[in-house]
Amino acid sequence: MSDPRSAPIGVFDSGLGGLTVARAIHARLPHERLLYVGDTARVPYGPKSPETVRRYALQIGSWLVEQGVKAIVVACNTATAHALDVLSDAMPVPVLGVVSPGATAAVRVTRTGSIGVIGTSGTIASGAYARAIMALAPTAVVHGVACPLFVPLIEEGMITHAATQLIASDYLRPLQSIGVDTVVLGCTHYPLLRQVIAAEMGPQVTLIDSAAETARVLAELLERFNLLATSLPEPAAGVQAMPIRVVASDAPEHFRRMAESFLDWPLDHVEHHVFT
Amino acid sequence: MSDPRSAPIGVFDSGLGGLTVARAIHARLPHERLLYVGDTARVPYGPKSPETVRRYALQIGSWLVEQGVKAIVVACNTATAHALDVLSDAMPVPVLGVVSPGATAAVRVTRTGSIGVIGTSGTIASGAYARAIMALAPTAVVHGVACPLFVPLIEEGMITHAATQLIASDYLRPLQSIGVDTVVLGCTHYPLLRQVIAAEMGPQVTLIDSAAETARVLAELLERFNLLATSLPEPAAGVQAMPIRVVASDAPEHFRRMAESFLDWPLDHVEHHVFT
Repeated sequence: MSDPRSAPIGVFDSGLGGLTVARAIHARLPHERLLYVGDTARVPYGPKSPETVRRYALQIGSWLVEQGVKAIVVACNTATAHALDVLSDAMPVPVLGVVSPGATAAVRVTRTGSIGVIGTSGTIASGAYARAIMALAPTAVVHGVACPLFVPLIEEGMITHAATQLIASDYLRPLQSIGVDTVVLGCTHYPLLRQVIAAEMGPQVTLIDSAAETARVLAELLERFNLLATSLPEPAAGVQAMPIRVVASDAPEHFRRMAESFLDWPLDHVEHHVFT
Repeated sequence: MSDPRSAPIGVFDSGLGGLTVARAIHARLPHERLLYVGDTARVPYGPKSPETVRRYALQIGSWLVEQGVKAIVVACNTATAHALDVLSDAMPVPVLGVVSPGATAAVRVTRTGSIGVIGTSGTIASGAYARAIMALAPTAVVHGVACPLFVPLIEEGMITHAATQLIASDYLRPLQSIGVDTVVLGCTHYPLLRQVIAAEMGPQVTLIDSAAETARVLAELLERFNLLATSLPEPAAGVQAMPIRVVASDAPEHFRRMAESFLDWPLDHVEHHVFT
């Protein structure tokens, strides 16, 4: 049997957003090989029912295990909210979501205990962040705001458009009125809108990037299980590319083009696989 | 065997948009019973590959035939563009899409032959409207513009928001510069944005509503096949409700609430069915 430490880390999302998590993992753990799945045939998960999201997550998790991953990162807030528990029970490898790392960081940095969480309608309605934060800090007050248009605006590249600023201003106004001192970016797409959100909230509010926090917790988890890779993956041909294998369940070439901006790294190829 | 004329008409879409077509059919053919499917477990179809959309359309079409429909309306521009041909070949009942009726109406009303078509990225990239229009009017010049944010803006109820006007202004500017005299609303959601689009394009431009045109062609088709219903469906309890049975492949209760604004009619119940 080969050294389990050299196995890849499985990372999945309904689409592109989880690539911000893959990028953060690579930044923190450059020795690790990544196997990324974007479930583009069934994106978005946000408006789908918990049962449906669980079924999809189990299908992808099982496939990642077949591919020999040493750990699974659920790089999707909706899938974490609905499916982390069943996935942790069903999979033979450690499973990490994005909610707990973001919640932990928010509790660490807040001074007033008044914490905002922004995300898709599904993530906010699930109450997953509020539960995770209040489990750590029972006196915290959590204000969730759904920002359903942020994902399509980001995916259309309208990051600096005046319409995006108007919509951000509308979405974030309640959090400003309340006077939260911390805002969790509870959607893996949102790091790409970080500047717009920061400008709207002002410098006195700390933004928590779930992607970076998840990479930090993953590093601790792998160390605890003695699963950290010990050497750099072999470069394919002299130049060191990001050691990532990317799989999409539909339209892989479109996904490849979009993925480059999320990874901020060129990507030669995206494989196609249908999950059933 | 019961009278085939009293069988329902099957109407399907990836989600809510096709309800504007169902509503237009009811307005023109109030005697007809409708069976509507919204494939909310797999919405949206726009960014999915032609093969995937064809697979989904065949699954839903087969189920509608099992339910005894006398005709199928593909009330989704993406599914019409990718799957109308295979569906027409595979189904034992007449199948009608939304592209041909919209294209026919555009050719009928244009004076200059300069026609704009707006739709999702998938519909515009498919070139289906341009082909359908130029088959009828080879000298017409068709200008397609993808408006990918219109659907999420409509589904968020932001129809009169300043951001929607800014985005509409950006999307439609090329059509204004070119000076088209006709614009086809090539997405079943867009009738809900009709006023914003009309204000942007100005009174000299005629907007073609594919939903209304599809209902008109359906009426002709049913008459030709001697399939028009001859009597009103029995009212359930005194008050005549819209004679429509609505099925969603995920989150039926959420779908029911949203569907009422698309139908402009109260809806008691949405059934749940998973298509495989």
